[in-house]
Amino acid sequence: MKLSDLGERKLIERMGELLDIGDDAACIKIGDGFLVVSTDMIYRKTHILNEMSFAQAGHKIVSMCFSDIASMGAKPAGFLLSYGSADIDFADFDELIKGAKEQAERYGAGFIGGDTNETDELTLAGTALGFADKPVFRKGAKPGEVVGVTSDLGSAALGVKVLLEKMVPLSEIPADILQRTLDPEPRVREGILLGNYASAMMDISDSLAVSLHEIAERSRVRIEVRVENVPFSKSALELGDKFGIDILEQGLYGGGDYELLFTASEERWDELKDEFSRRDLVKVTKIGRVVEGSGASCVKDGKEFGIRREGYEHFR
Amino acid sequence: MKLSDLGERKLIERMGELLDIGDDAACIKIGDGFLVVSTDMIYRKTHILNEMSFAQAGHKIVSMCFSDIASMGAKPAGFLLSYGSADIDFADFDELIKGAKEQAERYGAGFIGGDTNETDELTLAGTALGFADKPVFRKGAKPGEVVGVTSDLGSAALGVKVLLEKMVPLSEIPADILQRTLDPEPRVREGILLGNYASAMMDISDSLAVSLHEIAERSRVRIEVRVENVPFSKSALELGDKFGIDILEQGLYGGGDYELLFTASEERWDELKDEFSRRDLVKVTKIGRVVEGSGASCVKDGKEFGIRREGYEHFR
Repeated sequence: MKLSDLGERKLIERMGELLDIGDDAACIKIGDGFLVVSTDMIYRKTHILNEMSFAQAGHKIVSMCFSDIASMGAKPAGFLLSYGSADIDFADFDELIKGAKEQAERYGAGFIGGDTNETDELTLAGTALGFADKPVFRKGAKPGEVVGVTSDLGSAALGVKVLLEKMVPLSEIPADILQRTLDPEPRVREGILLGNYASAMMDISDSLAVSLHEIAERSRVRIEVRVENVPFSKSALELGDKFGIDILEQGLYGGGDYELLFTASEERWDELKDEFSRRDLVKVTKIGRVVEGSGASCVKDGKEFGIRREGYEHFR
Repeated sequence: MKLSDLGERKLIERMGELLDIGDDAACIKIGDGFLVVSTDMIYRKTHILNEMSFAQAGHKIVSMCFSDIASMGAKPAGFLLSYGSADIDFADFDELIKGAKEQAERYGAGFIGGDTNETDELTLAGTALGFADKPVFRKGAKPGEVVGVTSDLGSAALGVKVLLEKMVPLSEIPADILQRTLDPEPRVREGILLGNYASAMMDISDSLAVSLHEIAERSRVRIEVRVENVPFSKSALELGDKFGIDILEQGLYGGGDYELLFTASEERWDELKDEFSRRDLVKVTKIGRVVEGSGASCVKDGKEFGIRREGYEHFR
C-alpha cells in the first residue's frame, strides 16, 4: 500500500493515532497558560508558485504557521525555519529570510532559530510558537451554536487556478485575489479575539469542506451551511463569472485560504461581530449552524446537499 | 554570489546577523525558567545513508534535535516533525514515525505534532522543545577553565567514511561504530547534569574543530587541546589503523558525532567526573583548557598546531 492509496489526511490521521495529534497546533501546559506549537512544510513543486518571489515564499511559510497558532486562539511568540535549497544566489536566500523575518515581526514574534540544508528543490519547514491562556480546539462545538468564518473565501484557490492554468496574466488579476494567492495573511488578531468566543476553531487552509467535517467529527455534531451566506469578494465573483469557474466550488473545496472557521453561541454573535468591527478586524460572517448528528451539509435554494470531505491534499 | 561561495556556516551566520541566532537552540524566558527550541532538517541525499532503515531515519532526526536541546543543558519536552517524501510504501512511513516516536519517548518527550508533504526525496524537518532553569550558551567560557567532551569521538565520521567508500561491508563494522553511524544517541542526561557545571556548551555535530572555534569566538577566549587526551574508542582506533585512516583527523574535522563539548572550572572537574560515573552516564574527558586569546589550537608531541575551522558543511 502506497501513501497515495491513503492520501495526506489519512496519513495525518495515522500520525494522530500513533501520536495523539488532532488540532492545528499542539499544546503544552505552562504555568497558568499554554504553549502552542505547530510545524508546516512547503515545497517548490507543490506549494510555492513560480510567480512567487523569494520574499513571498518566506512570507508564506510564516503565514501558514501563524495561521495554525491563530486558529488555537493563541498569540504568536516565535518562528523557526529549516531551510533547504539547491545552490541558489545568496541574494535570493537573503530575500527569503528577510521576508520571513518581516512577517514574523508583523505579528509581534521573533524569528528565533534556523537550520540550512542542501536540497534539490526549495523546501521550507517552519515552526511557530505561541501562547494562549485557554486554547480553542476542534472538538468543542455544541448543537445550537452558530458557525462563522473570517473575511471571504475561495480567492486563494481561484488565484492559484487562474495562474496555473494561465487563464489570465499576473498583471490582470485583481489585487485582493493576488494578495491572497501570493501574500496570504494569517488571521492572528482575529484568532486571539475569537479565543474569547469560539467553542471550536480551525483554519481552512485545506478547504472549508475539510474543516467543516473535522470540527463536526471531533465535536460529534453535524454542521449545516447556508450556501447563500458563504462570503465571496466582489472580484472573486467577477473573476469566477468571467472564466466560468464555480466560485462556490472554490470556496468549499479549494485550499490555500487562511481564514478561520469557528463555532460560537448564538447569543454572543452580535457582541462578537461588534468587537470585530470596533477593533477594525476583517469581517466575520455567520454561514451556518451546529445541529445534532454527524457530517456536514449545505442548504442551497431550500434543498440540502452533502458536503464532500475534499480539499487540497498531498499524495492524491 | 552563490550559496556555495559562502558555505552553510556563513549562511547560518548571516541568519544570525539578521536574526540574533547563535546557539544550538533558541531560548524564551517563561516564568522562572526557559523554553528551549531548535529545528533541524535532514535530507535523503545528504544526511540519510542508504544503509539506514526508515525507523533509523526517524530515530536520527529526533536525536539531532534533542542533541541541540541537551547542549543547552535542557530537558526535552516535545518533538514535532514536518515529513516530506515521494509516494513510498505506507509501511515505511509508519516505521519512520514509530522510530521517531520511540526515540522521543526514550527521553521523556512527547511526539506532539506533524505535517506531511509530497517531495521528491525523503526530507525530515524536526523541531524539539525543552525546558531549562538556566540554559548554557556558547559564550560563557573563561580563561583558566578546562575543556571537556562526553564519550569518545570520530566514530560517526569514520563509520560514514567506510560505508560511503565501501571499504568494508556493513556486517563487519564494529557494533559501537555502527551505532554511532546509524542510531546516534543524544547526550540528554549528560547535558542536563552539565547544566549545573558548564560555563559554555554546544554539541559537536558539525565537528569538534568547528565547535572549539565557535565557543572560543563567542566567549572571546582561546582553546588549547592536548591531542593525546582526545578520546577514541578501541574499535575506532583499530578500524582507522586497518584502513590507514587518520583517526585524529576524523575526530577533529569529521561531523555526525552527537557528543557535548563544554568548559567548566578546574576546581569542580573531579566532582563533575564523579557525578557522571555515579549516575552511570557516558564517560567525560578533559581534552584541553581555556586561555586568553582567540582561536583554537592543539598540542601534539610538545608542538602546537592551529586547528582549522572545518567540519561537515552544506553548500561546500
